Amino acid sequence: MSEYPGSELSPGTVAEYLALAVAEARAGLAEGGIPIGAALIVDGKVLATGHNKRIQLGSPTRHGETDCLENAGRQPATVYQRSTMVTTLSPCDMCTGAILLYKIPRVIIGENQTFFGGEDYLRSRGVEVVVVDDEECIQLMRDFMEASPSLWNEDIGEED
Amino acid sequence: MSEYPGSELSPGTVAEYLALAVAEARAGLAEGGIPIGAALIVDGKVLATGHNKRIQLGSPTRHGETDCLENAGRQPATVYQRSTMVTTLSPCDMCTGAILLYKIPRVIIGENQTFFGGEDYLRSRGVEVVVVDDEECIQLMRDFMEASPSLWNEDIGEED
Repeated sequence: MSEYPGSELSPGTVAEYLALAVAEARAGLAEGGIPIGAALIVDGKVLATGHNKRIQLGSPTRHGETDCLENAGRQPATVYQRSTMVTTLSPCDMCTGAILLYKIPRVIIGENQTFFGGEDYLRSRGVEVVVVDDEECIQLMRDFMEASPSLWNEDIGEED
Repeated sequence: MSEYPGSELSPGTVAEYLALAVAEARAGLAEGGIPIGAALIVDGKVLATGHNKRIQLGSPTRHGETDCLENAGRQPATVYQRSTMVTTLSPCDMCTGAILLYKIPRVIIGENQTFFGGEDYLRSRGVEVVVVDDEECIQLMRDFMEASPSLWNEDIGEED
């Protein structure tokens, strides 16, 4: 039986996919960026990975998920429709919308303790949402929010 | 009285703002791109404009609205919160989400005849939505969809 109700994914597969996103989050942190990473899996293979580049590129739209989609490049609709988006953090409204635009049927979320995004809306639109509640993801965000609260608020459109 | 129920904007102001987005759509078309343009207005002034760059940059995330946000660069939350997003076409789920992420309170939409996006969701989240039903915007999209149906389907994550 799966650890994740309603999902066919085994805990081992989820952990393997999430590790890709965590590696991206850590790469972003090492660049001086916001530590949120993502990976797009298609047919069990990694199509692309990405991480938040607000600071690195001065970008208000390169979140983990959108950077990952950007790195995947232009793809036919059918590719997205058999993919899984993996992200270290619950997706914001923009990234939720990007997932819906491309009809990505499943999202694996590292954690939603430090930020709760569009999960309910994703589910209401038929997307499978798997929340891992991963301690490493939580700690990455807690440390960043504590060290750089203004940057974090900027990233989610909140006032300081 | 306004031509647009529920909006304080005069028809002249709406037309002036929309012209900026249309000019961007035409610039995109001239580059061989998908003719959708946008502008971000803050305190009655143009902060940025942008247009769809799927073809020009090989980008799945640079729609009119997201390109406009990208061109505006990193902004404090308070700037977005007193802005108006102008777009030639009803915003897709991703761009709807970007508008919600940054709490942009008002969206002016050139037309929603050729594509109907996240307008109802925007309204449900408290965003003022003004639909112009502009013939020039409709014609730009109709011509493009007829000439390049595959590109258009790709842009909205639809199969051919």
